Amino acid sequence: MYKVRDMFQINENYLKLQGSYLFSTIASKVAAYAAANPHREILRLGIGDVTLPLAPAVIKAMHGAVDEMARQETFRGYAPEHGYDFLREAISRVDYRSRGADIDPDEIFVSDGAKSDSGNIGDIFSTQNRIAVCDPVYPVYLDTNVMGGRTGFMNPADGRYEGVIYPPCTEENGFVPQLPEEAPDIIYLCFPNNPTGMTIPKAELQRWVDYALEHGSVIIYDAAYEAYIREDGIAHTIYECEGAKKCAIELRSFSKNAGFTGTRLGFTVVPRELRCGDVSLNDLWERRQSTKFNGAPYIVQRAGEAVYSEEGRRQTAEQVDYYMRNAACILEGLKSAGYTVYGGVNAPYIWLKTPGGMTSWEFFDHLLEEAAVVGTPGSGFGPAGEHFFRLTAFGSYENTKAAVERICRL
Amino acid sequence: MYKVRDMFQINENYLKLQGSYLFSTIASKVAAYAAANPHREILRLGIGDVTLPLAPAVIKAMHGAVDEMARQETFRGYAPEHGYDFLREAISRVDYRSRGADIDPDEIFVSDGAKSDSGNIGDIFSTQNRIAVCDPVYPVYLDTNVMGGRTGFMNPADGRYEGVIYPPCTEENGFVPQLPEEAPDIIYLCFPNNPTGMTIPKAELQRWVDYALEHGSVIIYDAAYEAYIREDGIAHTIYECEGAKKCAIELRSFSKNAGFTGTRLGFTVVPRELRCGDVSLNDLWERRQSTKFNGAPYIVQRAGEAVYSEEGRRQTAEQVDYYMRNAACILEGLKSAGYTVYGGVNAPYIWLKTPGGMTSWEFFDHLLEEAAVVGTPGSGFGPAGEHFFRLTAFGSYENTKAAVERICRL
Repeated sequence: MYKVRDMFQINENYLKLQGSYLFSTIASKVAAYAAANPHREILRLGIGDVTLPLAPAVIKAMHGAVDEMARQETFRGYAPEHGYDFLREAISRVDYRSRGADIDPDEIFVSDGAKSDSGNIGDIFSTQNRIAVCDPVYPVYLDTNVMGGRTGFMNPADGRYEGVIYPPCTEENGFVPQLPEEAPDIIYLCFPNNPTGMTIPKAELQRWVDYALEHGSVIIYDAAYEAYIREDGIAHTIYECEGAKKCAIELRSFSKNAGFTGTRLGFTVVPRELRCGDVSLNDLWERRQSTKFNGAPYIVQRAGEAVYSEEGRRQTAEQVDYYMRNAACILEGLKSAGYTVYGGVNAPYIWLKTPGGMTSWEFFDHLLEEAAVVGTPGSGFGPAGEHFFRLTAFGSYENTKAAVERICRL
Repeated sequence: MYKVRDMFQINENYLKLQGSYLFSTIASKVAAYAAANPHREILRLGIGDVTLPLAPAVIKAMHGAVDEMARQETFRGYAPEHGYDFLREAISRVDYRSRGADIDPDEIFVSDGAKSDSGNIGDIFSTQNRIAVCDPVYPVYLDTNVMGGRTGFMNPADGRYEGVIYPPCTEENGFVPQLPEEAPDIIYLCFPNNPTGMTIPKAELQRWVDYALEHGSVIIYDAAYEAYIREDGIAHTIYECEGAKKCAIELRSFSKNAGFTGTRLGFTVVPRELRCGDVSLNDLWERRQSTKFNGAPYIVQRAGEAVYSEEGRRQTAEQVDYYMRNAACILEGLKSAGYTVYGGVNAPYIWLKTPGGMTSWEFFDHLLEEAAVVGTPGSGFGPAGEHFFRLTAFGSYENTKAAVERICRL
């Protein structure tokens, strides 16, 4: 008897992915150091995770919502897939209308976080679209497009996937990506930026919006670090730019402004004006979410609502201020020690140039061995991140200060 | 100047989707009836959502976890994307090892629910794979494959998408789907079944496993209603079947066994033995989840852990018993009134044959107009659901009893 058919097949695009060795390599190097130096306190400025507990207003709202789930009269079953109105309305009012951006609640889709959304958003676009991601970049934008079949294989010579447009963000261009000559279909932008901690003026963002409108591109704008903006002249949302509602989707998170990394809440804005021919992308995303998602937990949505209360806004702003004090401490300390540093002014990330031409990994090893301080090698975020190093401001002030002192003594 | 390029393109597979009019049509018919009959109490046995509040053990665990999030020493940031060990170990022990199924914690991926997982699981398979879904069926399996490009267009003549294999589950075959002559690559099975409320003996499930192993198919097994199994000889997990670890992925939910529809928790089992050539599907799903998902909330995972505690198991079993008492009430009442009814013995769904050859929608209108009772037309789940009607056991006992009395008086 002959074999009449093959086995089921996997999505072979997954085989194009490079191993995600960055954080596992860091972990194993740190573990080895810890084993060899059991009495040395290791200070971690590597991870992008917050450390302050949730704000009292958030805790109070969650206890209240848990109690509602305990009583038949107030129990909540399936939530609307796009989120409860109480949360969508708060977001519309505080994050958009107060900034002059006319975003309605039904243009806001509440989710379990910006990482899910930034990966899932690809579902509604053709696999034939060509993408652009900055270099260096938050790896999720790129990896999810590799999985989705919008790239070729990685070229080992330059560490770049075929078919992807990579506007570089380098010291030379002040970490401001330049408009590509060849227009992409989908452009991922993140400001304030992870990993560089840099941002761009609103006028510069307007240039990207104009470019997208001119070339028929759609912008996926990740504004997860919006709460860290301190300077004037920087857009808090892309919808402050004229015409953005016709070309941009915005991703937002509760992780960094309110410490929800382990609580999980985010949202995506898909304006009704954003269309491809006759098709509304708002309709497509509604269909995607109502078919492949079942809403964020009621308890967590009530927690999110509390972030927008007067108390919640004050308390979460204090948390952001606390982290920004850390950022200032890192920035000033390293500058005074002669390092070349970027970011940290409108973002919780500091992007430092490795001294003496060290590679990112050489500096990682140096810092770990000599100061027992852990950071993240810039090359892990893309080839243009080589010779840079990311430190984060999410630790305690005491540890941050101690780490900076150790680095300065090197 | 000529137009050098087109706009970005959408995923055109979305345009093949049929409007999801089932529940919106039901809602508008019910609203019209309510407006015309303002004093008539409408009894709803249509939705698949639970109504009992969360069990006390679950509430206690959530309050405790919320308090942990309020203190720096116990605050939790990013969770492992595949879930906390405390929950994976409880699942492995209670749901699998206790039933003789050797599933390790690292084969269990905790998620925000079975709906997300049943849609997202398609990510790791080729778009060229051919799928099989039973008819009638939970629409998510089918719609997510339409979106993913694994079907052609719907043929309006028979209500079926081109390229899909549809094993029918009908009165004639006792709602036991037959093995297809042409072997699919991916087979979706759900037992106890939504919408029919029927299940199949373990020996019959073993035939599907053997068939999948012989033909190189993978089975996506949805066991969301496992807690409702009352009879012997029915598999509680597909891994009770020999060889299933080489061909099956299992989806599980906390929605129906513990009332988590609005709390959101589920998990997917991808055994390490499940491979396509050299590639481990466990590795692929780990990569998918770690790239496009950021873990279920800590608070909700602690709630899930409480479901597996001694108290939690007793309390949630009582909830399931309560719903099964409703199911028995519906089943016995309708039988005594001369209806032909299926399901309801090992599932919270009753699948009744419409009397007098009425279509599903004619019976819907009849029931609404004459008894003010709302159910779900079987044709909404697929062509083979025509002339059937789904009632659910998730209401209060009082309302269920009253609804049955009204139907019996028709």
